[in-house]
Amino acid sequence: MRESYHDELDANTDDVVSMANLVRTAVERSTSSLINADLGLAEQVISDDAKIDALHDEIEQRSFNLLARQAPVAGELRTVVAVLRMCYELSRMGDLAVHVAETARHRYPDHAVPQPVAEQFTQMAQIADTMIATAAQTLVDRDVEDAKHLADRDTAIDNIRAEQFRMLLSDTWQYGVEEAVDTALLGRYYERIADHAVAIGSRVIYIVTGEAPEGENWPKAF
Amino acid sequence: MRESYHDELDANTDDVVSMANLVRTAVERSTSSLINADLGLAEQVISDDAKIDALHDEIEQRSFNLLARQAPVAGELRTVVAVLRMCYELSRMGDLAVHVAETARHRYPDHAVPQPVAEQFTQMAQIADTMIATAAQTLVDRDVEDAKHLADRDTAIDNIRAEQFRMLLSDTWQYGVEEAVDTALLGRYYERIADHAVAIGSRVIYIVTGEAPEGENWPKAF
Repeated sequence: MRESYHDELDANTDDVVSMANLVRTAVERSTSSLINADLGLAEQVISDDAKIDALHDEIEQRSFNLLARQAPVAGELRTVVAVLRMCYELSRMGDLAVHVAETARHRYPDHAVPQPVAEQFTQMAQIADTMIATAAQTLVDRDVEDAKHLADRDTAIDNIRAEQFRMLLSDTWQYGVEEAVDTALLGRYYERIADHAVAIGSRVIYIVTGEAPEGENWPKAF
Repeated sequence: MRESYHDELDANTDDVVSMANLVRTAVERSTSSLINADLGLAEQVISDDAKIDALHDEIEQRSFNLLARQAPVAGELRTVVAVLRMCYELSRMGDLAVHVAETARHRYPDHAVPQPVAEQFTQMAQIADTMIATAAQTLVDRDVEDAKHLADRDTAIDNIRAEQFRMLLSDTWQYGVEEAVDTALLGRYYERIADHAVAIGSRVIYIVTGEAPEGENWPKAF
């Protein structure tokens, strides 16, 4: 029974990593569909989101069974509770990638965003990709230091977004209201994807230390 | 011990209701600060968010202790797990109200949104208020039918938002790029507040029936 118990805990970690990998693919593909006005890729991201949601449901069901049958305590209970939150964060990240893909689909065959903005989203997606990979790996390694660095990476995305706002609200913005609105909403989606990665890191810190991290870079309601 | 156990379960429900009431106040005040360019009220919403986050942390800590010491099963375990998710949804709703207040503060002494848009946000805030109240009450009453109706109310907010997009992307939009961008982002915040209320309802259905509700109006990753 205890062996199966630890197998179940490990399966939860494996599924979080699998979810993170699916989310990385979703963010990469949705960004590519946006930049290249690629309708097929956008639709693939939208339909593939069901796989992310299925893993969410699987983790939640397994966690529930673990709590019901094994009554974990201390660090293992913290892990189960944290993973319940993490799978939700990852499913939301998948939903946000879907919103990016839906924007690409909605504007097709046009490009949803002009070239200078496209470059910013490419950068934001690359930073987000590293953050998601790091977030999942910190859970595997229980690495508090790497988890702490996620908040710094998040600042890089916030900075690009601030630059983007300056651009689209300046007198030299030449692309119209629709493009400005799309850009602002898309920027919000990428910002939230990165925020969720930071939140996963904060949960790893909680698992290891039993304390939520403090400071303005961390989610207040941990 | 069992008496204290049920007291703790009840305290969790009470705290969810208290969080919902604080969120209702935050949404009402942030909307008022937005419509009336009321800086003082905006700042109050921003500083009061700490109370919502404190309740989140309290619920989470109590739930953790319940799981560690009482090992609840069946419906009571479902309730503890559901409440863990609900307190997160409510803290996010508080954050979104803060974003509305921050927009009002950022544009002060100007009004952030023009009159026709202000009326739409007033409507969205009123619908959201009813939804948040209903969501909390369904937990108290374990009322599946009321929880199901939350998805219908959500559609009303989505419809106002669709109308808002048509307005700000039409040739008759006379208020400029900045107002359009603010409107689009604010609309997103209200939409998300309503989505979280629906998600709380879906968790109540899960507590009562043991099954997640299905259908396109419900969050996919329940």
